[in-house]
Amino acid sequence: MKFCSHCGRPVTLTVPADDDRPRHVCPSCGTIHYQNPKLVVGCIPVWEGRILMCRRDIEPRRGYWTLPAGFLENGETAAAGARRETFEETGARVVQLTPYLMVDIIHIHQIYLMFRSRLLAPDFHPTRESSAVKLFEEVDIPWDDIAFKVIEKTLRFYLEDRISGRFAFRTDKIETRGSIGN
Amino acid sequence: MKFCSHCGRPVTLTVPADDDRPRHVCPSCGTIHYQNPKLVVGCIPVWEGRILMCRRDIEPRRGYWTLPAGFLENGETAAAGARRETFEETGARVVQLTPYLMVDIIHIHQIYLMFRSRLLAPDFHPTRESSAVKLFEEVDIPWDDIAFKVIEKTLRFYLEDRISGRFAFRTDKIETRGSIGN
Repeated sequence: MKFCSHCGRPVTLTVPADDDRPRHVCPSCGTIHYQNPKLVVGCIPVWEGRILMCRRDIEPRRGYWTLPAGFLENGETAAAGARRETFEETGARVVQLTPYLMVDIIHIHQIYLMFRSRLLAPDFHPTRESSAVKLFEEVDIPWDDIAFKVIEKTLRFYLEDRISGRFAFRTDKIETRGSIGN
Repeated sequence: MKFCSHCGRPVTLTVPADDDRPRHVCPSCGTIHYQNPKLVVGCIPVWEGRILMCRRDIEPRRGYWTLPAGFLENGETAAAGARRETFEETGARVVQLTPYLMVDIIHIHQIYLMFRSRLLAPDFHPTRESSAVKLFEEVDIPWDDIAFKVIEKTLRFYLEDRISGRFAFRTDKIETRGSIGN
């Protein structure tokens, strides 16, 4: 941030009164511009024991496999955002969304919230964002070609909990920049 | 948002290519300015069955009682943010944070994430943000003077689950602007 989005003048980085960390502050109009983590919402879409994954056709990590997920938008619930992202990336409709895993990805200022879900029907297709969309049996999951660490974590937790059938809400965090971004 | 925070020129509200909703876009430098919900993190701090609440000494809802909560900052986990807010508002240290309740507050673009927690010691005090900080027995909770609907929900869920001792992760949403803001 270089300029004030309210008045268009240059901002400075300074610690405001009654605050304890630097913010972008506008010396002209006085606006303090807070920057906060973003929530990424996504699904583990399941159909008859198989998991729906998509191969990214956009950067970053184009060509690698992921679970549908994306930034939550203003005006929607977290579950609605996860449903929307799943539809946008896979063409599939999901139901029975249950919050399952929250992962703090500290260095990129993102909080992932992944929902368990069921496909309404085995209907899905490639999309603008995904060059392939496919249901995977556990043994066929492309572990060497997963787009992001948070997605690998989500899959491993899910498959682990599926053995017992007990899916308590989980949390985890990713603190360091890995070879695969997040 | 009126001006581009990247180049300082006026922005326009338009639907970018490959998008489906209006964004603030800079016609000069091309930057798309996304706006997303913010995560508010907080605690139910408990000591020997009593719940620590604070009376707000800042607007909105100055003079009303709440649970410690505030915006998650970049660079911290959700749990760390909840601990920080609790300390800032009550002077108390909390431990054993467990995610308990997520509430989508759609019309103000906020997601609340409330943690169950235990006070490390019964040490707390008024702060810059709280004119009073107090441990409440259930029967003494000031229901008529709660600052926000989401806080009332949090307390009611917690007290309900405490009867059985089973605290599964819960979700809820608030869709309409009520008399008490959120």
